[in-house]
Amino acid sequence: MERLEIIAVDGIGEVSEGADLARLIAEATEAQGTPLVDGDIVVVTQKIVSKAEGRIVDCPDDAARLQLAIDEAVRVLRRRGDLVITETSHGFVCANSGVDASNLPEGKAALLPIDPDRSAARIRSGLAETADVGVLVTDTFGRAWRLGLTDVAIGVAGVAPIVDLRGTKDWSGHELAVTEIAVADEIAGAAELVMGKASGCPVAIVRGYSGPRSIDASGTQLVRPPSEDLFR
Amino acid sequence: MERLEIIAVDGIGEVSEGADLARLIAEATEAQGTPLVDGDIVVVTQKIVSKAEGRIVDCPDDAARLQLAIDEAVRVLRRRGDLVITETSHGFVCANSGVDASNLPEGKAALLPIDPDRSAARIRSGLAETADVGVLVTDTFGRAWRLGLTDVAIGVAGVAPIVDLRGTKDWSGHELAVTEIAVADEIAGAAELVMGKASGCPVAIVRGYSGPRSIDASGTQLVRPPSEDLFR
Repeated sequence: MERLEIIAVDGIGEVSEGADLARLIAEATEAQGTPLVDGDIVVVTQKIVSKAEGRIVDCPDDAARLQLAIDEAVRVLRRRGDLVITETSHGFVCANSGVDASNLPEGKAALLPIDPDRSAARIRSGLAETADVGVLVTDTFGRAWRLGLTDVAIGVAGVAPIVDLRGTKDWSGHELAVTEIAVADEIAGAAELVMGKASGCPVAIVRGYSGPRSIDASGTQLVRPPSEDLFR
Repeated sequence: MERLEIIAVDGIGEVSEGADLARLIAEATEAQGTPLVDGDIVVVTQKIVSKAEGRIVDCPDDAARLQLAIDEAVRVLRRRGDLVITETSHGFVCANSGVDASNLPEGKAALLPIDPDRSAARIRSGLAETADVGVLVTDTFGRAWRLGLTDVAIGVAGVAPIVDLRGTKDWSGHELAVTEIAVADEIAGAAELVMGKASGCPVAIVRGYSGPRSIDASGTQLVRPPSEDLFR
C-alpha cells in the first residue's frame, strides 16, 4: 500500500539575504522531531529563496509592481488592469512575472529566483550530509480555465518532475498511450495543503514518495514549449 | 505542526455497472487496516465512477473516440489531429471531453459522469454510517503552458474546493490581496501520487486535512467563468 506523509516544517523564522537555507531546514526539521531521512522531498516556497538570494526590491505602489512585472517578462501574453499574464525569462507563464509583495515589509516586492533549479540544487547539496533528498522550489500560480491558484514547482533537484507512463501497461494490459504526469506540480500542491499562505510556514517535507529520482532534473521540463502550446 | 497522510486504497477490484462504490470503499479500507475516520477525504478516480454509473460506451477506433469527444462537448476550443480541447457540458476544459479508453476492455471508452458532484455526494452519503468524510471525484487533465497532466477535482462533496485567504493577514501582518487556493485540485494531485495511472488503484484517502468543509460544494466552483477567462 502506497502511503505518503506531508509534514509542515515550523520554526524557520525570518529569512535574510545570505541565509543558509539548507542549514535552517536541517535545524528546523530536527528541532520539531521530524529529522530528514533519505528519500524525502523538501519543498521550499519561492519567497524565502528569493529573500535568501537578495531578490527583494523596492516597490512603492501598484504602478511600480506592474513595471517590475514587465521588466521581468520576456513577453506579455494578456493584460487586464494592473494584472499582466507574462512569460518569464525562465519560460514560466504566470501572473505579474511572479513579482509578489506578500509576506514582505511595506514597499518591498520579491522577484523570482534567477535560476530556481540552481537554488534547489544548492539546498539539496547543502542537505547532503543530513540526508539524500529531492528539493522543489515552488510558487503559487493561476491557471487557464480553472479558478483558484495551486502551488507548482519552478525549481527541481534530485527528483524527476514528470513521470512518463507511456509504454507501461494499464490494469487491462493495454499500453497506455500518453500519460505524462507532472508529479513535481502535484508534490508542490500537496505541500501547499500543509503550509497555507498565511501561516508563515515556507517549507514542507514529502515523505514516502516512491517515484523516480533524477540527477539532471529541471523545473523547465514542466514548461510546455511555446510551439506546442495551443493556448499561448 | 500540520501533517497529512495520503493512503492508497488497494483491493477495490473490477467495478461493474451498478456497483455500490461506498460499500466497496468502506470494505477495502477496512480490509487493508486503514478504516475511514471522521474528517478523511476520500478521493475517487472518475473511471470507476463512470463504470459504476454505466457511462461505458462502444468506441471501436480513434474516429469514434473523436466523435464521442465532440458529442460530449458544448464547444471545441482547439483541434490538433485526433486531439480536441473541448469545453464539456459541466464547463470543464480538457482533452477529448474526458473520453478515455484506458483501463477498459478493447473497443470501449468511458465518458465523464453526468453529474460528478452528485456522484461524489452519493458516495459521501453512502459512507456516512462509516465516517463523516469529504469526497472528491477526480480526473487527469492537461494544462495550458505547462507540460504533464495532473489530477483535478471534477466532483466535490463535503469539502470546500477553494479556500479564500483574502482578508487574512500574512506573517508580516499585511492583508493578503487575492489568494484563493484551489485546494480540491491540490488534494486530487496529492492522491494521484499514491495511485499512479498504471497501478490500478482508483481510490485514496487524504487524512489530517484541516481546511474548511462545505455542505454546498461543487466541482463547478473550480471552473473559471468563460467571461473571466483570458485564455478561452
